[in-house]
This record gives sequence, structure tokens and C-alpha cells, in this order.
Amino acid sequence: MAYAIGLDYGTNSVRCLIVDTRDGREVGTCVHGYESGQAGILLSKSDHNVARQSPADYLKGVEVAVKGAIRQAKKTVRNFRAEDVIGIGVDTTGSTPLPVDRNGIPLAMHKEFRKNLSAQAWLWKDHTGYAEAAEITDKARQHRPQYLAKCGGTYSSEWFFSKILHCLRTDPKVFDATYTWVEHSDWLPAVLTGTDHPEKLKRCRCAAGHKAMVSDSWGGYPDAEFLSILDPRLGKLRATLGNATYAVDAKAGGLTETWAKKLGLKAGIPVAMGAFDAHLGAVGSGIRPGTLVKIIGTSTCDMAVAPREQSLPDIPGICGIVDGSILPGMWGLEAGQSAVGDIFNWYVNYLQPGGKKVGSHEALTKAAAKLRPGQSGLLSLDWNNGNRTILVDPRLTGLLLGQTLHTRPEEIYRALIEATAFGALTIINRFEEYGIAIREVINCGGIAEKNPMLMQIYADVTGREMKVSRSAQTCALGSAICGAVAAGKAAGGFDSFAEAQAAMCGVKSKVYRPIAENKSVYAKMYPLYKQLHDAFGTTGYSSSMANIMKDLLAIKEAAIQ
Amino acid sequence: MAYAIGLDYGTNSVRCLIVDTRDGREVGTCVHGYESGQAGILLSKSDHNVARQSPADYLKGVEVAVKGAIRQAKKTVRNFRAEDVIGIGVDTTGSTPLPVDRNGIPLAMHKEFRKNLSAQAWLWKDHTGYAEAAEITDKARQHRPQYLAKCGGTYSSEWFFSKILHCLRTDPKVFDATYTWVEHSDWLPAVLTGTDHPEKLKRCRCAAGHKAMVSDSWGGYPDAEFLSILDPRLGKLRATLGNATYAVDAKAGGLTETWAKKLGLKAGIPVAMGAFDAHLGAVGSGIRPGTLVKIIGTSTCDMAVAPREQSLPDIPGICGIVDGSILPGMWGLEAGQSAVGDIFNWYVNYLQPGGKKVGSHEALTKAAAKLRPGQSGLLSLDWNNGNRTILVDPRLTGLLLGQTLHTRPEEIYRALIEATAFGALTIINRFEEYGIAIREVINCGGIAEKNPMLMQIYADVTGREMKVSRSAQTCALGSAICGAVAAGKAAGGFDSFAEAQAAMCGVKSKVYRPIAENKSVYAKMYPLYKQLHDAFGTTGYSSSMANIMKDLLAIKEAAIQ
Repeated sequence: MAYAIGLDYGTNSVRCLIVDTRDGREVGTCVHGYESGQAGILLSKSDHNVARQSPADYLKGVEVAVKGAIRQAKKTVRNFRAEDVIGIGVDTTGSTPLPVDRNGIPLAMHKEFRKNLSAQAWLWKDHTGYAEAAEITDKARQHRPQYLAKCGGTYSSEWFFSKILHCLRTDPKVFDATYTWVEHSDWLPAVLTGTDHPEKLKRCRCAAGHKAMVSDSWGGYPDAEFLSILDPRLGKLRATLGNATYAVDAKAGGLTETWAKKLGLKAGIPVAMGAFDAHLGAVGSGIRPGTLVKIIGTSTCDMAVAPREQSLPDIPGICGIVDGSILPGMWGLEAGQSAVGDIFNWYVNYLQPGGKKVGSHEALTKAAAKLRPGQSGLLSLDWNNGNRTILVDPRLTGLLLGQTLHTRPEEIYRALIEATAFGALTIINRFEEYGIAIREVINCGGIAEKNPMLMQIYADVTGREMKVSRSAQTCALGSAICGAVAAGKAAGGFDSFAEAQAAMCGVKSKVYRPIAENKSVYAKMYPLYKQLHDAFGTTGYSSSMANIMKDLLAIKEAAIQ
Repeated sequence: MAYAIGLDYGTNSVRCLIVDTRDGREVGTCVHGYESGQAGILLSKSDHNVARQSPADYLKGVEVAVKGAIRQAKKTVRNFRAEDVIGIGVDTTGSTPLPVDRNGIPLAMHKEFRKNLSAQAWLWKDHTGYAEAAEITDKARQHRPQYLAKCGGTYSSEWFFSKILHCLRTDPKVFDATYTWVEHSDWLPAVLTGTDHPEKLKRCRCAAGHKAMVSDSWGGYPDAEFLSILDPRLGKLRATLGNATYAVDAKAGGLTETWAKKLGLKAGIPVAMGAFDAHLGAVGSGIRPGTLVKIIGTSTCDMAVAPREQSLPDIPGICGIVDGSILPGMWGLEAGQSAVGDIFNWYVNYLQPGGKKVGSHEALTKAAAKLRPGQSGLLSLDWNNGNRTILVDPRLTGLLLGQTLHTRPEEIYRALIEATAFGALTIINRFEEYGIAIREVINCGGIAEKNPMLMQIYADVTGREMKVSRSAQTCALGSAICGAVAAGKAAGGFDSFAEAQAAMCGVKSKVYRPIAENKSVYAKMYPLYKQLHDAFGTTGYSSSMANIMKDLLAIKEAAIQ
């Protein structure tokens, strides 16, 4: 018997999954919600853009979740033995960097910075660095256009250097006390393996390549000269980042005695290099060339891979094309939508339409499912949290059009779902326009599991079959696969990802197929969506209205001051 | 002692008001809701555009309301005597035409047509004739451009001939059984005075001029040749419409013995020519040259007058410029917004945001009042029921822009109010661009009375003082003024409208003045509203997106079929 553990750090909680390496059977799982802030997120009353997390929550989480999963496995499998766990994989959200001192200790764990928001982990959806993101984009365009080419042409406020530069600009005390910044996905495996001292720390290719402009073409991280143009102090930070980065087939190290004891596992078992949740979710969904994996949650990640032999152009708006970021030996391509479930949650929780009885997700879905495509006359953009792919603009805002005096809550709910489907199609089209053929779409994540209407709308809008990953915990499963590969065949794992995926992944029997009649209605609506998309989202278009949302934000910011 | 009665037929009910002619004191009032359909409106499940009313409801209403008002007057004024009522005025919604037979009996009162929706009164907000409206506009542009010039350049689906032509096309049995079509505002005074036989019927200038392309310049109604181009049967109808039309200083006749007995009034007292509610609301608000009267209810009417000596250009988008339609001897100008209160009601009653506690008008107003202009980042168009002035396009739809994952119900509520204020400003600007100076704005209607926040926003957005009419029942008061003028000075009334208004009208002491800080924020937002307005509402604009709402409607109609 051989089991692998996948640790999956999400936005609000950490999950531990114990998987049988022979067939992917999930024998034990445990989810632990982070204890600080609001659902694990530290917010600021004065700035909606702030989203931070406490590194201490991450450490407590691993202990509670692993022990809980082992307890469950013991109930599920007779004679389950924790010493049969052969390897551990870790995925986290990202870019979620945290500042650490010379000894690798997070600043947030220093007494003087404990309550300082800048000293915490800067969660992926923290958008405070939007001005710095624009500045980085601007300076890179002038001085290092090659840096932008692989990350969609625009550096995002969600990413590594935007956050660091924003800290430097707004909280220099924290910045100055920091030795280096580490992604959550690098920090956690390093802690488990005792390699968290900055001298020994390994940084993963996934975070580095997708969020920090790292490429072998220019020797790793952006050069110090360029960073110094942004700020000389950022230039100095360059030396602490190193040059090597590692794909997911590498090992972070072996589990330390201390952690093995804490978790009840065997000391020395390999811990794989960490990676982002979406990337390992794609692995856990069985990603291979020609497959698009859509991880649909509060936001989406849309992942594809292409053989390294394929010569890829730069793809405008695709957040990253990184060698080995998803599967070793392949280009990993990452796209995504800034909000999907979050838009529905906003509608239900903030707007609270239809009173309490009518306004739940369940009731709205039931009523919306009775509507025919196009029947409401509504059309919406899916930009309530900006647009990641293909516009890479976090400061775009929502739009709803077509409402009359008869428009009902479920009609808007459906229009919001359709908007996210149109956004999904825009991403697929962009991939294909640049030579990444999409022959299969596998969906995973809670919404894909729970909302057949949404899946059917996605099939109808995209005109493609929608498959759903067999596992309900694909990120954790992907992490476990990394653990199994890190352990290797000899130990009961695998020597390649393809073998591991073949054994451990699958899709559900229910496949959502496009309904011709619906497809033809949506084929008429999509050009209208695209017209709004281009008019409000791009400049230089013949009927651009791209000024409007930005002018309103400027007015809003002036009003709040 | 002398009293005048004003009868005000609204969308859902009829009101009777008894007014002291000396000082405008309102001594008795009674409102009677129409009994048929939903709040007095006959709807169709299959077509949202249908809105009809039962003529029998109008007849029952006058009796209940007059008697009720007399009862109240007797309680209010010691020694009140119904025989001191010296005249009656009548206002109704419009264009609300009904088909009548050779004897002036409404077809709806024939047994065979009693349940036929086409045989009822076609309420102003019935939009079934939108295709016919476009056809009339098109044919008039080709053959009689002068007909359109005085009604804003576009013939509306809400108006007389659109409705008649739609009946002809869709229910020829009703059309063929009809001798002629009569506006509610002409029919009711004719019934009270026994002049409802088509040979004797007088048609008022207000309905004819604003809704039926009547002008002295071409001898009254559109000529038979033109109507025959639309349909030969419509050409034949022309002969039944006559040529003369009458301003509000004319009398419809004297109250018949039968009706006098029914109502408890003196037989023979004069009944003034009827007119539309908005026009007499303007009279009751004290309209004069330089004054804009805004009647703010479910929709708005924005009324102005100009001396007949002033040479007026045609004003694009102004629904009508009609000699004597508001005050005798003056041009009456009518503009308006297709939905104001209706938009807020849609939001509260259909969308029901914020649950039951948060989502009432009162709670939303209270929360919205705490927001600063521009703070929400939202911008909305006020087109949920189309746009009357200045675009004359009932098939435009709503738009909301700027929402994020944090947007709250009260923010949208305020944005909707602001949208109607921007719409109001667009109308004022159009008047002024064409030489109608607006030196004073007097508001009336329930919303102006009850919502100080809305009035303040209107002041801030338009940069003008907002006054509120002293009477809460200005339409009925305007009708009563017509009754008092019809009676004349010798009978205790007045010989001119100016004298009657001086004695009977006034404004409240509370005047809403623009707050400089708010005004400057809205001055930044209005150009953005205008940009959306022009892009979505007009063609031929450099960045026109006018196709989008119409394409969605076409898709919607196909989906419903």
C-alpha cells in the first residue's frame, strides 16, 4: 500500500487529502478554515483592495488538516498506516508573497509587526498595488519589453513585484526590515523540509514564471538594473532572489523530524516543490496537450499545456507561458477570470435580490434554469472584479444592460452566469487564435460540481462539451500526484506525471453537450458581448468607451477621500 | 362662496377635488381605484406591451369620487353646499383612445366585445403599437415631414394612430365595428355633458396636437390621403375625426340633468374641455413662460409654455409643441421621461434587493442619503421603460455600469435616482438649446412631495433650484381651475387663467438649492452619462452602440415565440 498526501491552501482554508496511489481513491480528507480575519482574510475598512493572511494560520492549518485526514483514513481503510504515506505535495494560492527576515522567519511573526497588515502574506486578490502594477508595466515596456511578452503584455496588481513595490512605497518600515519575499507556495514546503533559510530556499517555477517575470532566457528573475529603475531598494532585493527555479518534478526536500512528529508521518519522506493551486488542479484533472482545465471557484483559472517542442508565440492577455509550470517538460499556460463565483456571491449576499426565500443560489438557479437563452433580453459583462484574461485590467467594473420594468432577479442571475460563460469563450478563442488547439474542456471546482445549469450554459455558449473532473478536490489531488512522483516508483509512487495521472485521475460519466438551439441563440449574443467587451475594455477601438469606467473610479476615489 | 371641481383620471384611480376658488383651498377630495385588472390595468400574460382599461371603470369612478369629495367637503366646511360648485374640469392620462360606435357608446360596453382587450381604452403606456409607430414615422418622413416636426421627429407607440393602426392590423373585427376613436380626455366631458354622440363631440387641442399630429397649419388632423398610405381603412376613419379642436378655455358643455342628479350637483354648470393630466398639472402648479413644471410620478412630464408671439423652431425630441394645449394663447411644450418612479418601483418590487427590511423605498432612501455623489462608482441610464425625451424611443432598455463585488443595494438605488436626474437635465438642456429659457423649475407629484433626497439630487445635478408645488394634487387643481375659468368671473370663477392661477396656486416654502460640492461632482458625471446616452441611444454617432439593445430585443422576441 502506498499513499500520497496533497496539501491544498485555498483562499479561506487549507485542505489535506490522502490518496491511494494505485487508483486515485481519496481515503481521507480534512479542511481547516484559517482563524484570522474574515473567513481567513485580513481586511481593511478604509481600502477594499486589501486582502492579507496570517502565516501563523498556514502553520496551524497543516497540523490540524493532516491529523484530521489521517484520522479519517483510519476509519475509511482498515489497517491504514500513516507510515505508508510516501510523499507530500503542496499547492497554495498565488501570487501570495510574504516578507521574511534573514533567518526565513515571516515578519508577521515578529512581535513588533504582528498586527501590521503589510507584514502578513499578501493574498492573491490583494489589489493595493494597482498603481505599482501600472508603473511596472510602463517601465518594462520602455526598458524590458521581453519581460512582459510572456505574461500577457501587462503586469498585474495581483503579482509579486506589484505587492513588494507597494509595500516599499507605503510601509517602508516593513520593507526595510524584510530580507526577502517568499511565495506562500515556496515557503510552506521549505518550512516542512527545514530549508526555509533564505540561503537554502528553492523557488518554484510556477510562481516565479507566472508572477515574477522569471525566465531562463534572461537568467531567472528580472535584473537588478531594471528593478532599480523602479526603485533602487527593489534593485537591492534582487540578490536575495537567486537564479535557479524548479519545476514540480523536483523535490523541496525531506520532511523534518520535528514536522514528522507533529503530523504523525514518517520523517524524510519527500516533499515536492510547491506550486499554485490552479496548476496542480490542472494536474489533478488530468491535463495534457489539447486539454483546457477550467478551475471554477470564486474566480477561474484556465490552464493548458503544450509540448516544449512546440514553438509558441507570445499571446496577448494570457497571464503566463512558463516552461514546466504545470507539467515538467511542457509549456504551462495560465489564463483566468477575475471573478465567477464571486459575482454570483455578490449578487446573492450583497444585493440580496428577491427576499430571503427567492434569493438563495439554489432558488435563483432553479428559476433561472426555466428561462430560455436570450429570453430576458439581458446582457452582462463579467467584470465586477476586473478582467484578468484577455484584458489584464483589474480596474474594469461590471455592466448590466437590457433591464426593463419587468426584469426579475433570476433573469439577472442567469445573465451573470452567461456573462462568465462569454468570458470563458473569449479565453478559449484567444488560445486558439494563437495556435493552442483546445480539443477537450475539463472543469473542476465547487461550481462545476454543483451547478448543472451553469455547466450546460458553458457548453451552449462555447459550443463545446464540458467534462467534469471525477475528483471534487483536484488541487489537492494534483498535489498528491506531485508527492507520488517525488517519491518515485520504487517507493510505490510514479516516475512520471503521465503515469501518475493515468492511474489517479478521471472524469465523471456525465458530460454536458451543447444543445443546438441554445448554441445558435448564444452565437447571436456573443458578438454583442464582444462589442461591449471591446468598447469598454480596450482603447484605440473605433467606438471605444474605455474612459467611462476609469473616469467613474477617479470620481469615486475623489469622493471617498 | 364658489367652488370648482377637478376630476383627475390617473393610471390606477380617479380623484375628485373640490377647491375654493378664492384661495385654492382644497376642501374635499376622494380617490377611487379602478376595479378591473391589476390596479385598474388590463394586462396580457403573453405580451408585456399590453395596458388597457375598462371605460365602465371611468364611469363608476366619477360617481364614487365626486360623491366622496362632497361628503368630505361637508365635514371640512361648515355649511358647504354642493350647489356652490360652479364648474367642472377634467384631466385624464393620454394618449388613451377608446373605440366607440355610431352612437358614441364604447365598444367595450357592447356585450360581444366586453372581454376583448382591443375594445377597451388603450392606456397611455400600452406599447403594442411600436411597429406601427415606426411605420407611421417612416411614412410621414417620406410624405409629410411637417407632421413630425412638431412632435419631436418620431411618432410614438404611445400615441393615438399607432394604437388605432395596431388594432386595425391585429384585431380587424374590433376595428371594423368601430365608428371612431375618442381620447379618454374628450370622451369623459362629452359623457357628462351629453355631447358624446360623434356628431357633437368636441376634441381637445391637447390630445389632438400632442398625440395625433393635429395642427391649424394643415387644417386639423392628418389628411385622408396620408392615412390611406398607412391603410385605406385608416384613411376612411379621417372623416369621423372632424377638423376643429378646442383649447382648455372652451367649454365641453353643461352638466346634464341625469349626471347632475347622479353626482348631487347643479344641472347645467359648465364642464370645461378635457385635457391631459400633465398639462393641467402644469396649470395647477402655476405654469407661465420661463417655468418648467416637472410632474414626477411613475413617469414624468416636463411642461413649458411660450407666448404665441415667440417664433419657435421645431425641437428634436420634444414630444409636442401645440398652440393652446396648456394655456390658451400660448404654445404648450411637452417633454418627459418614460419611467422615473416606475424604475424605483421595479427595483424595490421586482428585484427586491436587500431583503425585506433593507429593501423598502424608505430604508433604501435613508441609506442612499448617506452616500456622497460619485462615491459608489456607479452610473446608470434611466431607460428601463425606454426614453421619451429626447430620444423618443420606447424600445431602449436599462443599463447599469460600475458595479464591483462590494456594490450595495442602496448604491444602486441612488444611481437609479441620479440617472433620472441626468435624464431630467438632458431635457432642460434641450429646451434651452432651442431658445426656451428655463428660469424656474416647479416640481409636483408624489415623489417630489415625499423624497427630499431625490429633490436635492435633482437640484445638484441640474444646478438649479427645485421648488415644489403647494398642492399635492396639482392635476386635479388644474382641472378645477379650468372649471373655474369655464364658469367665469360672474359666477364666482375667473375670466382668465392668469387670474385663476394667481388666486389658486402656490409653491411650498422649502426650496432645494444646489450644493456647490455635489454640483461639481455631478458636473463630472453628466458627460459620462451623456456619452452612454449618445452611444446607446443614437445612431450615426462616432462610437454608436445603438445596435446592442435592439439586437437583444430581437433575440428576446425570437426566444419568447
